[in-house]
Amino acid sequence: MPGAAVAGLWQNAALFSGGGAMVRRNAFYAQSGGVTAVINATASAVIETAREHRDVIGKVYAGRNGILGALREELVDTSKESRAAIGALKHTPGGAFGSCRYKLKGLEESRAQYERLIDVFRAHDIGYFFYNGGNDSADTAWKVSQIGRKMGYPLACIGIPKTVDNDLVITDTCPGFGSVAKYVAVSTREAALDVASMAETSTKVFILEVMGRHAGWIAAAAGLAGDGRDAAPHLILFPERTFDRAGFLRRVDECVKRYGYCVVVASEGVRDAEGNFLSEGGTRDAFGHAQLGGLAPRLADMVTTELGHKHHWAVADYLQRSARHLASKTDLDQAIAVGRAAVKLAAKGENAVMPVIRRTADAPYRWRIEAAPLGRIANHEKKLPAGFIRPDGYGITAKARRYLAPLIAGEAYPPYTKGLPRYVTLKCELAPKKLEPWREG
Amino acid sequence: MPGAAVAGLWQNAALFSGGGAMVRRNAFYAQSGGVTAVINATASAVIETAREHRDVIGKVYAGRNGILGALREELVDTSKESRAAIGALKHTPGGAFGSCRYKLKGLEESRAQYERLIDVFRAHDIGYFFYNGGNDSADTAWKVSQIGRKMGYPLACIGIPKTVDNDLVITDTCPGFGSVAKYVAVSTREAALDVASMAETSTKVFILEVMGRHAGWIAAAAGLAGDGRDAAPHLILFPERTFDRAGFLRRVDECVKRYGYCVVVASEGVRDAEGNFLSEGGTRDAFGHAQLGGLAPRLADMVTTELGHKHHWAVADYLQRSARHLASKTDLDQAIAVGRAAVKLAAKGENAVMPVIRRTADAPYRWRIEAAPLGRIANHEKKLPAGFIRPDGYGITAKARRYLAPLIAGEAYPPYTKGLPRYVTLKCELAPKKLEPWREG
Repeated sequence: MPGAAVAGLWQNAALFSGGGAMVRRNAFYAQSGGVTAVINATASAVIETAREHRDVIGKVYAGRNGILGALREELVDTSKESRAAIGALKHTPGGAFGSCRYKLKGLEESRAQYERLIDVFRAHDIGYFFYNGGNDSADTAWKVSQIGRKMGYPLACIGIPKTVDNDLVITDTCPGFGSVAKYVAVSTREAALDVASMAETSTKVFILEVMGRHAGWIAAAAGLAGDGRDAAPHLILFPERTFDRAGFLRRVDECVKRYGYCVVVASEGVRDAEGNFLSEGGTRDAFGHAQLGGLAPRLADMVTTELGHKHHWAVADYLQRSARHLASKTDLDQAIAVGRAAVKLAAKGENAVMPVIRRTADAPYRWRIEAAPLGRIANHEKKLPAGFIRPDGYGITAKARRYLAPLIAGEAYPPYTKGLPRYVTLKCELAPKKLEPWREG
Repeated sequence: MPGAAVAGLWQNAALFSGGGAMVRRNAFYAQSGGVTAVINATASAVIETAREHRDVIGKVYAGRNGILGALREELVDTSKESRAAIGALKHTPGGAFGSCRYKLKGLEESRAQYERLIDVFRAHDIGYFFYNGGNDSADTAWKVSQIGRKMGYPLACIGIPKTVDNDLVITDTCPGFGSVAKYVAVSTREAALDVASMAETSTKVFILEVMGRHAGWIAAAAGLAGDGRDAAPHLILFPERTFDRAGFLRRVDECVKRYGYCVVVASEGVRDAEGNFLSEGGTRDAFGHAQLGGLAPRLADMVTTELGHKHHWAVADYLQRSARHLASKTDLDQAIAVGRAAVKLAAKGENAVMPVIRRTADAPYRWRIEAAPLGRIANHEKKLPAGFIRPDGYGITAKARRYLAPLIAGEAYPPYTKGLPRYVTLKCELAPKKLEPWREG
């Protein structure tokens, strides 16, 4: 494992203490947005590393259900959790303290919420704010750092990267992505062997729908399952390419004729020429994003109706991002490294930064952790580079392989008892409240 | 691993040779029906064990695409495969020689097909017929043994159990089931942690659709993910219970109110009061079975429309039965044991039998291989016993747990290179044809 040393490439944040010696203050950690197979590994690293810095960091409080825990003053006292339980988070998927889809809006628009946050932090002597999430969370952490400054409340705000979507800028990859990538690549390879076995008399087209609302990173990772055009997946549908019904069907049919079967991996974010999601379900989440799902059955129906080929389809949904049983060791190492680095940055007095992963070599893969300003990360979205998609639009390039391959390397199995992974459930005892209840809405 | 000694509980089959010394003859092995994570492990054991019995068994020919390979005289010469490649089948999912959904009908109705089989066997001096499949395949193997006798062609017909549906009678379990059971139990546990994390502000109901057309064995296995009514999966929908829309929705809502979220595992075979599959897609396979899929999105839509809860759903489809990366060690051991036993039965002169698994203790699980007559297995279907389903119809009983738990025990990971399992692809060289082409249809 490469070292997690913090290089100061973008170190520009102000110290949060007034220039004197640092005093010991408590920390707040929250998980935000969709959870992953390894976000708890980051939590574990944050808590363990904080325990190594007792000179400057007191208790670590975790937000129950993410940032809502801070607003509601529902603070999980992680000091009540055993060393073994915190260690076991490294092999437990999901969000151990609860996550949330709850976006704080602009500073003026949601001023009361930001002030409430600072009130809660003040009441519990919280001087460190660790926010573990994606784009929206980097934005929130950045805004909290601003309000802290405006209100004269000393607070170190550190974003910690996490998202299966792999769409954060600056960082080489986002913890959580490598494990989904591995799951999708392995599952595609396995299902392809199944279809190949059955194709002569039964299923000829298999369609796997994967996550990826706006960026095709996860769909691209399925491309690692096979090498070259002859190997499954034969077709990948990216959200970066407009869906061409006739072209897709022609390709599927060619593929069945040539190989006897066709394996398709489709990103949930595929859109038609009018810009509509093929899978649009009509409902929207708290961030106003459309809730997707159901693309695979639509494509499958198209294939059978138009071409007459028997199909099977799968929608991996949460299974892909919670599959800790098949986590990437590289991803796990990085999830731990960003957690450790976040605490070390905070302990050194950094503010409004995020530890990011910087790749220094492809093969063998080398990386190190650096610090980047939150303001440069918030609200940006890293799409799949055009050079990663094959000119025909249905596969990945050698360049994409060089980028993706190391991210799925290595296995990191959880311990098992009686055939099932030994995932931990924390006590999640809340710290006594000191403030009046928060009136939501 | 318990021994794979063959006990003669049901040994009643006639010797196939005329009473004199056995002569060395070739063997034919075919995979039939839906493939599994461990059917190739059985194939590996058959070929390796045959190589240990060179005194009576010559070459092992494998049917290309199952029984079709015999009809078409497409016989894979497994002697061309290296020892390493045959060994690697033990960790490779899918059907290495191709499988098929192709059912031979009654002896009189399809007499020409049966005669063609015997012609091909005669041309290649095949004296052993190993048929690796489920109910339909046991029936075919049994019929082939009859036609061999009628045509005066000495042939040892041995069925080898395989089906993720776990619906063969007499045997304690069917190789392939334990691994799907493990996949479904682990995936349910993982996805449940994900939903629990998100429920406060986002997804409250998660629905996982699993295989199981007529029997709820796979759905029942999901029950191992949690212990007791408070743990996910909160509701299991069995094909053995008529779907009660109002009751289901009431249960989901109660569950969301009590726990904050609800995890549902639904068998594809769930039917309404009129006996119609909720997931009916309208198409049928070669055996006349309806092709199912699409139950999960229908249930999810019901939940959101009627109750207003945000949902996510997954359909595991082929992923569940090809997931060699998460195979059950017990299942793998049994898949190998039945393959070995099949060859040993044949080498001893048995005919029209199937090696089955006999459980002798639940905890610790003990089992041994015995031989059962094909005629007692063919065309029977083992449903989930009523005593395995909780009285309320939405969960499993302690008795079901005692039965299911040992089947998922133990891990048996494939080797990995660069983050991907090292699955083998055989050369599959065909033996030279000796007969005129078969005119299908």
